Amino acid sequence: MVTEIRVKSPADFHVHLRQNEMCSLVTPLVREGGFKLAYVMPNLKPPITTTDMALKYRSELERIDPQTEFLMTLYLSPELTPDEIRKAAGVGIVGVKSYPRGVTTNSDGGIESYETYYPVFEAMQNVGMVLNLHGEIPSDHSTNTCVLNAEAKFLPHLKLLHEHFPRLKIVLEHATTRAAVEAVKSLGPTVGCSITAHHLALVVDDWAGQAFHFCKPVAKYPDDREALREVIRDGMFNRSRRLNAIVNNVPIYYLYNAGHPRFFLGSDSAPHPASAKSTSTPLDGCAAGVFTSPILLPLTAHLLESFGALDQLEAFVSTNGRTFYCLPPSVFETNDVLLRKTVEKVVDMRFVLGDQVAIPFMAGKRINWEIAG
Amino acid sequence: MVTEIRVKSPADFHVHLRQNEMCSLVTPLVREGGFKLAYVMPNLKPPITTTDMALKYRSELERIDPQTEFLMTLYLSPELTPDEIRKAAGVGIVGVKSYPRGVTTNSDGGIESYETYYPVFEAMQNVGMVLNLHGEIPSDHSTNTCVLNAEAKFLPHLKLLHEHFPRLKIVLEHATTRAAVEAVKSLGPTVGCSITAHHLALVVDDWAGQAFHFCKPVAKYPDDREALREVIRDGMFNRSRRLNAIVNNVPIYYLYNAGHPRFFLGSDSAPHPASAKSTSTPLDGCAAGVFTSPILLPLTAHLLESFGALDQLEAFVSTNGRTFYCLPPSVFETNDVLLRKTVEKVVDMRFVLGDQVAIPFMAGKRINWEIAG
Repeated sequence: MVTEIRVKSPADFHVHLRQNEMCSLVTPLVREGGFKLAYVMPNLKPPITTTDMALKYRSELERIDPQTEFLMTLYLSPELTPDEIRKAAGVGIVGVKSYPRGVTTNSDGGIESYETYYPVFEAMQNVGMVLNLHGEIPSDHSTNTCVLNAEAKFLPHLKLLHEHFPRLKIVLEHATTRAAVEAVKSLGPTVGCSITAHHLALVVDDWAGQAFHFCKPVAKYPDDREALREVIRDGMFNRSRRLNAIVNNVPIYYLYNAGHPRFFLGSDSAPHPASAKSTSTPLDGCAAGVFTSPILLPLTAHLLESFGALDQLEAFVSTNGRTFYCLPPSVFETNDVLLRKTVEKVVDMRFVLGDQVAIPFMAGKRINWEIAG
Repeated sequence: MVTEIRVKSPADFHVHLRQNEMCSLVTPLVREGGFKLAYVMPNLKPPITTTDMALKYRSELERIDPQTEFLMTLYLSPELTPDEIRKAAGVGIVGVKSYPRGVTTNSDGGIESYETYYPVFEAMQNVGMVLNLHGEIPSDHSTNTCVLNAEAKFLPHLKLLHEHFPRLKIVLEHATTRAAVEAVKSLGPTVGCSITAHHLALVVDDWAGQAFHFCKPVAKYPDDREALREVIRDGMFNRSRRLNAIVNNVPIYYLYNAGHPRFFLGSDSAPHPASAKSTSTPLDGCAAGVFTSPILLPLTAHLLESFGALDQLEAFVSTNGRTFYCLPPSVFETNDVLLRKTVEKVVDMRFVLGDQVAIPFMAGKRINWEIAG
């Protein structure tokens, strides 16, 4: 039985670090959860729409935790120009995040149609910036569109974007459905897909009447969760030689059963004040988001082990994402994390700083791995 | 424009009146909501499994509100014998409620397989008792069964029961899916179907992160809600002459476009203490149930009007259900209710008695009808 695992430079390719006091609370918890690389979402109030805002935000984050590497993104909006893209790429901003209007936290300024952004995407393709997609279309009951099929109905947009911009790196974020997994697998090596830890655990039953498990996209059917688990555990079903990625113009082939290399961890860790996760009347819905940062690596090990994919842990939390983003693993061994099997680890009930209280996923429950060093 | 409607003796064919102080709070609210007939569910702690318990419960309810007629049901469980069925029918107990094990509030003692109950169903068929089905199978993630398909997967059981006991009156309670509507329509005149008011309003988006809209069965896709609305508004799509019910051995035919006569209101009004509808940690889920009793008739008028079915109000809230249950409309005009159009009616934020607080559906929101007398 495996009782220790050394993971080479884990990287969380989708995380919400918020603002003000909540930011001070949750930013150091990325490292506490085993990660020294955070790919930071731009949906603040106001959203991070310019290079200058992103740099300012990054310096705030670095002040809070100088030991974590923060990769920054811009919020796709009409303000964004090809010139701004080139400026952003020049100072190391990595991606642009697209939110469909009104679908999740602080997405009121999100996109409605992609065509107006084609000049921006063209510029991104040329400078090597990544397009990160929140892959849902807004609910529209007249067309039977709701939170359950919002992702599946988004997939044609993903395919179209990839068709128009085959060299543009696109990440379908926080996939939750078998349809999304199949779509990404069917597309070329420039299309990647992040998967959260909590979507490997939850199905619709879990957020039915449980606000702390409610997030966007919502967790779907058991068979959808199975598809996420399968693609991590044995993504290359046919076990045949197949092109899976091109890194620095070198084609990479996979021969054996293994997790699919274009699928990787992006936690979408999304803390909210505990009060915002509760409902006291039928008037106020609760905020969408599951907070996993403080336990992310042990949790991911715990979950992968539960479905027989523990041997894919490093690929899923580090190698696959770093390869897609062309970020080589850290050469410093200090960035490795040692996980140890445990029977005693109970997740903290809450994390507190001043007035801010954030309640983590699996609060009060046991997980089977802990960080040893 | 219709500004007043007189509704002949409204009847709520599915309501939870609870126990103790909560019972004292909610029972009078049935009449406040426009109903003097309540078909009472037996899922108390302990469940109402015998005639004597049902009679005792009925006398408690009558003591709380002597002006309301309470029709009683037994909880289907291994204790129930054909002899008990005959005893129950002899004192006017109307139905037997079947809960799949573990699916909803106080259903831990629910059924797992119907075959062991065939002698009981045989006796019910002979004495004319009604079988009320909570039509969901328990979640089983290994077979992709979850709250979203639990009702559709139950329907083969309904069809089989009807096949074995074609003379047994069966009600599929609180239907939420197009599949359920189609199944009931396809079956014989002894199979009816109740529909709640809130399922005419809600879809999955509404209970995603809103505990007060969480109930079992959960509200489904917009197209499922549309099927519920359609069957009330224009259930007989083909407008042809068709046998729809047999009442006292007289076949009844419908010739024109109208709501389907085997579909009727059963509110499934299910109050819980306000505290039980909130979640403060990921450990405690919230109770399933939407509380509609205090506003039921105005709310139903409001909703039917919203989808063009106001002319079906009396059929839906009185005639159809009474016909199915062979309960003629009251001959007393005092049981009629006059509804008046309004623009000022805002639903109370809460109903309180002593320590008990119950928060109604649409608390704080405007509905367009009110009870005038």
